[in-house]
Amino acid sequence: MPQNTQWLLNSRPQAEASVDNFKLVHTDTPPLQDGQVLVRHHFLSLDPYMRGRMNEGKSYTAAQALGEAMIGGTVGEVVESRSPRFAVGDTVVGMGGWQLFSVVDAEQPGALRRVDTTHIPLSHYLGAVGMPGVTAWHGLVRIIEPKAGETVVVSAASGAVGSALGVLAKQRGCRVVGIAGGPDKCAYVKNELGFDDCVDYRGHANAHSLSKALKAACPQGIDGYFENVGGMVLDAVMLRMNAFGRMAVCGMIAGYDGQPMPLAHPALILVQRLKVQGFIVSEHMQDWPLALKELGQLVGSGAFRPRETMAQGLESAPEAFLGLLKGKNFGKQLVKLG
Amino acid sequence: MPQNTQWLLNSRPQAEASVDNFKLVHTDTPPLQDGQVLVRHHFLSLDPYMRGRMNEGKSYTAAQALGEAMIGGTVGEVVESRSPRFAVGDTVVGMGGWQLFSVVDAEQPGALRRVDTTHIPLSHYLGAVGMPGVTAWHGLVRIIEPKAGETVVVSAASGAVGSALGVLAKQRGCRVVGIAGGPDKCAYVKNELGFDDCVDYRGHANAHSLSKALKAACPQGIDGYFENVGGMVLDAVMLRMNAFGRMAVCGMIAGYDGQPMPLAHPALILVQRLKVQGFIVSEHMQDWPLALKELGQLVGSGAFRPRETMAQGLESAPEAFLGLLKGKNFGKQLVKLG
Repeated sequence: MPQNTQWLLNSRPQAEASVDNFKLVHTDTPPLQDGQVLVRHHFLSLDPYMRGRMNEGKSYTAAQALGEAMIGGTVGEVVESRSPRFAVGDTVVGMGGWQLFSVVDAEQPGALRRVDTTHIPLSHYLGAVGMPGVTAWHGLVRIIEPKAGETVVVSAASGAVGSALGVLAKQRGCRVVGIAGGPDKCAYVKNELGFDDCVDYRGHANAHSLSKALKAACPQGIDGYFENVGGMVLDAVMLRMNAFGRMAVCGMIAGYDGQPMPLAHPALILVQRLKVQGFIVSEHMQDWPLALKELGQLVGSGAFRPRETMAQGLESAPEAFLGLLKGKNFGKQLVKLG
Repeated sequence: MPQNTQWLLNSRPQAEASVDNFKLVHTDTPPLQDGQVLVRHHFLSLDPYMRGRMNEGKSYTAAQALGEAMIGGTVGEVVESRSPRFAVGDTVVGMGGWQLFSVVDAEQPGALRRVDTTHIPLSHYLGAVGMPGVTAWHGLVRIIEPKAGETVVVSAASGAVGSALGVLAKQRGCRVVGIAGGPDKCAYVKNELGFDDCVDYRGHANAHSLSKALKAACPQGIDGYFENVGGMVLDAVMLRMNAFGRMAVCGMIAGYDGQPMPLAHPALILVQRLKVQGFIVSEHMQDWPLALKELGQLVGSGAFRPRETMAQGLESAPEAFLGLLKGKNFGKQLVKLG
């Protein structure tokens, strides 16, 4: 059996996560049972939700167990199969974790999905044509429910979710405004992704100042907001929401480290009759086929060219992940495993 | 023409509202035009939303104009008619304002509604079988969408909206828990309205302490919450919300005076995948007939006996209104005009 390398969760962060929370180990891959396949991972996905899993207790779902390989989406190829459903050489997407190989019960529904790389590069199945893309699709289509001509805003606009959100909202005839950190990201959001405008939150010391910039970028106010970050950005957007506005709450990176992160003006939920709704995309599997079809067409046709930040080698995963939490990535953060 | 007496909005509150914000004047009622009726008011409704209208600028809807009679729901009888749609002696409900008489364009849809007092006392058309009752109905049925067996919590539980919410939720097979101020109100909520339990928020210095009391009263957590007050109570409830919980946001009395009232844990909207939605009942007129039918049956049959606090005479309106904002009322706050 091939030698595996894994990143285990070694300890839970007290506040900010650090490389010390992870531990690299080398193990043997176990022999396959009937119905199992061995997948060699080519790319590992790094996503903000992983920070929530590192905490103990209530977060999205169950906490990541200590001493086990970190959870994570992967794409790769089947290198050994004892399942009639997958053949050696199949390219597949799954939740293989922070490791070079995974043994998967191929009979379990949804555990592995075969993907076609004719028109879509394999890595994009972890981004625009994968979980982050479907996250954007669900929040936009099921919660924001945009009408043509409405203004939709998304934070972390250059990221995997934000970029897909913007492209999908433009397809629906919306004015789309991003919020991102730094002039390079804002230029990418406007010039390459085709957003109507982008506000650089780094130029603003507080929500009031950022809110003024949003007013200029959204002269008709904001009808839909896709929330990726929380904190000051959320406060600023809330001050510009129109009556009957919808907010899809997907990420609040600013609060993962456990610091208090109050919402300054909840009374606006009443005054503007807003709907604010949280969701986790894995609880809406019925949306995946439709979402992946639209996203696959957008990427396959070249209408949507997602950007990726590629860390090299499994060893680099913790550092790349910590960078992602600080917004150092540009587009989808991946680790190339070889 | 009969002599009218009116309370005008004389100035806008800087922070807390006071009697000085109102001015009592005596005027003549104008002669009727074709299509108009003159209504003599028997009861005036006092409601928390009026505080929002006293502020300048963005609140629910337009601000109350200075120098004009305060807005308010009224029930009374037609004493003069130049409309074929209403006869002298008809009992009617409308938005007559803080005054003894109003001249109403009877042709305007929804301006006046004839009501039957055979089984339902006239004053209840301003409470349980009126705007507050429909407010509870819409929040419960359209936003909370309760399932039998779920736990529904309402703040200001002894008030006009809260009491109706509880009775309607019990009809739907829910465990219903109120939050109210003081042992008398809690006893009424449990013993007379039939709530399963009631938590007295006055015994708690902070949201954490109140949240513990809610845990005891809601051993299965909270699935639906009808929000009437904001502040500490909202924070405490949010800490007990179950996954996929729904919050209908109707009032935030605690914030009307302009003080900041942040929400402590907005990240729970994501973690617990909550839906938090604000609404104003006057924007959902399509729900009124169905809601009033159910509420009328509950009150007419004696299954729901709403409580009222009755101030005597128009002169007492400002003081009674300020008391309402401080929770001094017990059940629906009305003014008896004679």
